[in-house]
Amino acid sequence: MTNSVEKRSSTAGLLPGTLVHIGRKRAEKVKIVVSNYDEGHFEEKEVRRAEDVAAFKDKINVTWVNVDGLHDVRVVEELGSIFGLHNLTLEDILNTGHRPKRDDLGDYILVILKVLAYEEMGGGRAAEQISLVLGRGFVISFQERPNKMFDPIRAQIRSGQGLVRKSGADYLVYRLIDTVVDNYFTVVEKLGERIEELEDSLVTDPRAQTLQNMHNLKRETILLRQAVWPMREVVSELERAESPLINRSTAMYFRDIYDHVFEVIDIVETYRDMSSGMLDIYLSSVSNRLNAVMKVLTIVATIFIPLTFIVGIYGMNFKYMPELEWQWGYPAVLLAILMIVAGMLLTFKKKGWM
Amino acid sequence: MTNSVEKRSSTAGLLPGTLVHIGRKRAEKVKIVVSNYDEGHFEEKEVRRAEDVAAFKDKINVTWVNVDGLHDVRVVEELGSIFGLHNLTLEDILNTGHRPKRDDLGDYILVILKVLAYEEMGGGRAAEQISLVLGRGFVISFQERPNKMFDPIRAQIRSGQGLVRKSGADYLVYRLIDTVVDNYFTVVEKLGERIEELEDSLVTDPRAQTLQNMHNLKRETILLRQAVWPMREVVSELERAESPLINRSTAMYFRDIYDHVFEVIDIVETYRDMSSGMLDIYLSSVSNRLNAVMKVLTIVATIFIPLTFIVGIYGMNFKYMPELEWQWGYPAVLLAILMIVAGMLLTFKKKGWM
Amino acid sequence: MTNSVEKRSSTAGLLPGTLVHIGRKRAEKVKIVVSNYDEGHFEEKEVRRAEDVAAFKDKINVTWVNVDGLHDVRVVEELGSIFGLHNLTLEDILNTGHRPKRDDLGDYILVILKVLAYEEMGGGRAAEQISLVLGRGFVISFQERPNKMFDPIRAQIRSGQGLVRKSGADYLVYRLIDTVVDNYFTVVEKLGERIEELEDSLVTDPRAQTLQNMHNLKRETILLRQAVWPMREVVSELERAESPLINRSTAMYFRDIYDHVFEVIDIVETYRDMSSGMLDIYLSSVSNRLNAVMKVLTIVATIFIPLTFIVGIYGMNFKYMPELEWQWGYPAVLLAILMIVAGMLLTFKKKGWM
Amino acid sequence: MTNSVEKRSSTAGLLPGTLVHIGRKRAEKVKIVVSNYDEGHFEEKEVRRAEDVAAFKDKINVTWVNVDGLHDVRVVEELGSIFGLHNLTLEDILNTGHRPKRDDLGDYILVILKVLAYEEMGGGRAAEQISLVLGRGFVISFQERPNKMFDPIRAQIRSGQGLVRKSGADYLVYRLIDTVVDNYFTVVEKLGERIEELEDSLVTDPRAQTLQNMHNLKRETILLRQAVWPMREVVSELERAESPLINRSTAMYFRDIYDHVFEVIDIVETYRDMSSGMLDIYLSSVSNRLNAVMKVLTIVATIFIPLTFIVGIYGMNFKYMPELEWQWGYPAVLLAILMIVAGMLLTFKKKGWM
Amino acid sequence: MTNSVEKRSSTAGLLPGTLVHIGRKRAEKVKIVVSNYDEGHFEEKEVRRAEDVAAFKDKINVTWVNVDGLHDVRVVEELGSIFGLHNLTLEDILNTGHRPKRDDLGDYILVILKVLAYEEMGGGRAAEQISLVLGRGFVISFQERPNKMFDPIRAQIRSGQGLVRKSGADYLVYRLIDTVVDNYFTVVEKLGERIEELEDSLVTDPRAQTLQNMHNLKRETILLRQAVWPMREVVSELERAESPLINRSTAMYFRDIYDHVFEVIDIVETYRDMSSGMLDIYLSSVSNRLNAVMKVLTIVATIFIPLTFIVGIYGMNFKYMPELEWQWGYPAVLLAILMIVAGMLLTFKKKGWM
Repeated sequence: MTNSVEKRSSTAGLLPGTLVHIGRKRAEKVKIVVSNYDEGHFEEKEVRRAEDVAAFKDKINVTWVNVDGLHDVRVVEELGSIFGLHNLTLEDILNTGHRPKRDDLGDYILVILKVLAYEEMGGGRAAEQISLVLGRGFVISFQERPNKMFDPIRAQIRSGQGLVRKSGADYLVYRLIDTVVDNYFTVVEKLGERIEELEDSLVTDPRAQTLQNMHNLKRETILLRQAVWPMREVVSELERAESPLINRSTAMYFRDIYDHVFEVIDIVETYRDMSSGMLDIYLSSVSNRLNAVMKVLTIVATIFIPLTFIVGIYGMNFKYMPELEWQWGYPAVLLAILMIVAGMLLTFKKKGWM
Repeated sequence: MTNSVEKRSSTAGLLPGTLVHIGRKRAEKVKIVVSNYDEGHFEEKEVRRAEDVAAFKDKINVTWVNVDGLHDVRVVEELGSIFGLHNLTLEDILNTGHRPKRDDLGDYILVILKVLAYEEMGGGRAAEQISLVLGRGFVISFQERPNKMFDPIRAQIRSGQGLVRKSGADYLVYRLIDTVVDNYFTVVEKLGERIEELEDSLVTDPRAQTLQNMHNLKRETILLRQAVWPMREVVSELERAESPLINRSTAMYFRDIYDHVFEVIDIVETYRDMSSGMLDIYLSSVSNRLNAVMKVLTIVATIFIPLTFIVGIYGMNFKYMPELEWQWGYPAVLLAILMIVAGMLLTFKKKGWM
Repeated sequence: MTNSVEKRSSTAGLLPGTLVHIGRKRAEKVKIVVSNYDEGHFEEKEVRRAEDVAAFKDKINVTWVNVDGLHDVRVVEELGSIFGLHNLTLEDILNTGHRPKRDDLGDYILVILKVLAYEEMGGGRAAEQISLVLGRGFVISFQERPNKMFDPIRAQIRSGQGLVRKSGADYLVYRLIDTVVDNYFTVVEKLGERIEELEDSLVTDPRAQTLQNMHNLKRETILLRQAVWPMREVVSELERAESPLINRSTAMYFRDIYDHVFEVIDIVETYRDMSSGMLDIYLSSVSNRLNAVMKVLTIVATIFIPLTFIVGIYGMNFKYMPELEWQWGYPAVLLAILMIVAGMLLTFKKKGWM
Repeated sequence: MTNSVEKRSSTAGLLPGTLVHIGRKRAEKVKIVVSNYDEGHFEEKEVRRAEDVAAFKDKINVTWVNVDGLHDVRVVEELGSIFGLHNLTLEDILNTGHRPKRDDLGDYILVILKVLAYEEMGGGRAAEQISLVLGRGFVISFQERPNKMFDPIRAQIRSGQGLVRKSGADYLVYRLIDTVVDNYFTVVEKLGERIEELEDSLVTDPRAQTLQNMHNLKRETILLRQAVWPMREVVSELERAESPLINRSTAMYFRDIYDHVFEVIDIVETYRDMSSGMLDIYLSSVSNRLNAVMKVLTIVATIFIPLTFIVGIYGMNFKYMPELEWQWGYPAVLLAILMIVAGMLLTFKKKGWM
Repeated sequence: MTNSVEKRSSTAGLLPGTLVHIGRKRAEKVKIVVSNYDEGHFEEKEVRRAEDVAAFKDKINVTWVNVDGLHDVRVVEELGSIFGLHNLTLEDILNTGHRPKRDDLGDYILVILKVLAYEEMGGGRAAEQISLVLGRGFVISFQERPNKMFDPIRAQIRSGQGLVRKSGADYLVYRLIDTVVDNYFTVVEKLGERIEELEDSLVTDPRAQTLQNMHNLKRETILLRQAVWPMREVVSELERAESPLINRSTAMYFRDIYDHVFEVIDIVETYRDMSSGMLDIYLSSVSNRLNAVMKVLTIVATIFIPLTFIVGIYGMNFKYMPELEWQWGYPAVLLAILMIVAGMLLTFKKKGWM
């Protein structure tokens, strides 16, 4: 879990203006795709250098710059200078340990989100950061690494389906955030399936491994909560549409996202409640098992220890032990033993131990 | 529990305008009943196609369209276009995993509620969604499946009893929501009975099954909370009556519902408190049982293990063991044993173990 | 506990205007006492029929109508029509499962309170509902059953002592509510005594019964909280005195009640905290007892099981066992046994087990 | 703990205007000391009867009346009539179970505080009530019993040191409250020392007594919280200085007290957190001890029970048991036993039980 | 932990104007370094006496006075009189047990922060107090002892790098606070590493020491929370920039710190959640171990106690025991024993105990 804390300490003492990428380093080249569209026009191009984006800047249509990879600080810096982003904005984009937020800087709005890459959760990192910059006529999206998440939106832009081509940059931002929130539902469903599996195994087979699984589940739920809770505020601020960058008509779509975020939170909180209940069941199962083991021990010991004492009596070597001489002594002892066993079994039955 | 999370992931990436039903699919035909009434007039008709509702739209009287079944997306779509509902509203109606809410869209108010079908709770689904649309002179109610819940209201409309026929569409919405909240009381009562049963069985017979029952109860309480808590906000927004669609005089009735919702919440929270107390009792009962078992084991072992040692002594085969030759050796040992047993029993009595 | 949930379900589907008494049915006749007073004048009369109250309605002095018993719906209905009470108000009065509240209806203020009848708490019902209606020059108080609680106030009115006769209807309402809040202190004191008893028994004698007592205590604390918490809001709304029915000078008295309610809440919350602490002590006591039992078992078994083995060795029947022939063999074994026992006892002492 | 709930029930039903002292009765005479001072003038006098205070009332300088003991109701009543205090104010002063509060009555401000007398905490009462009345040019302070707490302030007034003589009545009130808050630090320090002691004993020697100590500590922390939490509000209301009785320049001093109160709260909350952690350690220590005991038992029983069986075999009296005749039978059995013991010890070592 | 509570009690009763240093006393000389700079000019000087600072006071450039060590009260007093600081401000600076806060006194702003010295946490003190005073053109920073934390900032001022030289005193304060917040990330990372280590050891080797470590971790997390939570408010008040001492343009930087503080809080809260989960795992591991021990005991005892009884039977000395005479009696018994053992082992396998 602790590796989700990005190593920020290395930046302590640096000039606040020094841009440093905080997050996993990667070797591959940063990929920049620029789309420019309006209702009648569409153009898409992968550019090699950040400088090439400048050509798109002053077009009247909507420009969407998508950047896959943050490890090349110069790319972010260059884009920042083209689109007039504040140094602190660039820092926020590069610091991938940031919590989701929305900053209105007047000329543009910065939105920071978390995508939960469920497949990797078991391993190291769980949350990827997506930063969106919504300006007048342009949207820049930064992702930590190549990701097919936004492909359906790009496809719709290309084909002219839906409302994207007919709408402005704010609608594109809505679609991007909506995609991220839909991703939470996927994560939540998978989490739900695992909880269900775990619940079944609790009753049938409570083992130490179960505990570990519950702990892992808890970790992931915490991660999910950290990603989703701040989204409420982020989306509700966007919905209020106090910035001229967001149309009143788009605000309603953000309201829709807001409801979705609340749904996810509801489910996650339910999972939290269920998880704590599961621990109780687990601990009780363990207790019950201990009880079962102890009962077996007690039954066996309680029956045989007294019997061993009885046969021990007649194993004594005293000279004068009249019973030993009796012809029916041995069968009598055996009979007595049988009766004691029967009596004890009856008692245990009555106590409900057997 | 996790199946209460509707499979939303299948819609990820779809155009936001694409209507998809999220919820259990059903084969039966969607049933649409239209009522049109005012104080003097009443008309009720089951229509075959959604288009037939259009004829009722512009009547001056109150029109109530009740739709049983959401699996036919075209019906919802058609009604949406007749009554001018926004696409996102239709999405909300079709997505049955929605949390209760109230949306004021100016021309109409959308209210989403949950009915708790208690009988099915043990099995899969527990909450059915009811969506109400209150417009100028019309109410549309969507239910997931045929449900007799609203029959008493329909009967009153038919017979002209009560205030429904004398009042507007907002009063009808009040009556529908009131019916749903009354349904919560039924659920809460049944839950209460089960808690009482469980409490009794805790004291008399704490078994692993009890734990499972407590877990199920907890689940249902969580479901209930999720349905009821958001209702506070929903009803309080209706009560404020800021929309021209709601009369000041009807607001008072919503205030009444608001009180009822609070009563339900109070009871549910009490159940939650009691449930957590029950777990403590259960765990303590299990501990106490373990204690009882251990005491029996300890008493038996503590008495007989030393005795076995004593008789073992005189079972040794040493040549020179003077006691073995004594005439009263055997009775003396038996007497010593009896005295030891008596002493031990007294000690256990004093310790309160017997 | 669950029987504190009034059976509301029976009213589901009824016309909202149909008045039904929700609560314990009773056979006795409803008792109505009307008092009419001002500084110089006093008149008190028990009336047979609700209609007889009408004669007192338009007198200028303060009129106090006290109704003992709610099971005769017609009485409430008749009073409602005499004093112009809204139908929903009557419903609230009759539904004895209502949570404490204050409703300002312009012409009158409805206050709903809970009295805690401590004696009955162990059994079925714990909270009785008292409804007060404060109108222009009149107060109506509804109680579920005859109750001597308000007798001191009546006595003061009769004798002209104190400020009641000199003040208006709002002061009378203050006195009634004050009496109810003073009742909470009585309940809280008794609860405190029981907690003290329980705490003592925890240390001296932790039994299963103790657990049951703790559970009962918890239940009662929950009931108390439910009665008292909403009172804060009720009284603070009265204190604000926004209604012309309440004098500015009376508001100060409500402020005093407000402080008292807060005191009760403080004590109740302290009890809650102490209770949870008591459970921890109980569980630890049980654990400590188990530990004690286990130590006895371990000491006895650890001493005698090895000894039994030793004497078992010399109980073997091998032909060639030189020790058996030795003259001092037997005493030597006994000595060895004694030394082992002494060594073990020393070890246990050192471990602090004895 | 429960004796900290003052017996209020005895006042139930009394006229609200009847003054009754709620708290421990005392026999000693109530002590009244009046000081009158300004920058140039100082006068101090112990008066015998409350009436004698009247002479000081209309002096222009600051008058401080300190009353030690509340059990003589007439004293409070007389002072009330001299300084024009409302009847409810007198009630609040006499009811020593009151929670800390500040009431602005226009002509004067009533402040109720709690002093924690730590030395007595183990026994019955823990919190003494101090009531301060700040009027135009006078301060009255009521204490439950003689207390040297305010002596340093009196000494400064006498000697003319510090700002007291140079400032108004509001500054004197600030000094009195500051003294009370400083008293909390003393209590908190002593509590801290005891927690530290307890923590040490947890690790070294977890006994039942430890649990009792933890419970007592919890009680005291609860008492402390109840005294300190409401102080935040009390002091912050004074700081806002909305009353003409408090100078803007004094407000800053109240801000300082506010910070101190927050410090105390911070420490108390930390203690609460630490306490709950200590219970976990205690319970785990107990569990670990049980584990240790069980291991000893298991090791001894697991080694010797099988051995006893083996020697039991050769204690059988069958006629045809060839081993018994072998010359090396006995040594062979002893060797086998030694090897079994060695094997078992190795296993236990590997399992980490020894 | 309790030694983090500074001994305040010693100041109880003192004149509020008497300055006393509350905190660890130190012998070394207090070190005062004064820097004076603007974009073109830089001057730095270590002064011997506080009086020497006065010469820098009225320079137009930014003056930064850094004081290492608070134990010499006269230094603080002298600086206070030079820069016109209120007596209560000086008290706050000297009382190192203060919680983080921001006080706007009009002429200057006082900011109190905590630095967490992680290395010392195991030992006595954990949090050092840093007080910043921001006035018109000057910043005074007080540290409890020499600390290299601010060296990078000083280096930048010297070299003229970054924005410090170009900006005003408010920017310098931003840089100082930013450095302190960056320090939290370092602490948080180290804490994270220790949690990770602890988590690993929980699964592999749950010992009593682990519990102690968890307790220590909890302590440190509490300390961290106390330092960080109030920072939210402190920084958000600075960000609002209502004082003329803070430029609108600097406010944005404080917003950045605000986000960082929130990140730290997020991580700390995650640690808290994980810690409580770890305790559950620890307790379960202990339970599981006990279970394992009990199973071994039960298996061994359940197998051998009955066998010992069987061989005991044939150790009896009855005259008439026909089996003893049989030639195949001994082998038959051995066979029976083998079969019993096999049967039991099978049963244990089936129960999953082996």
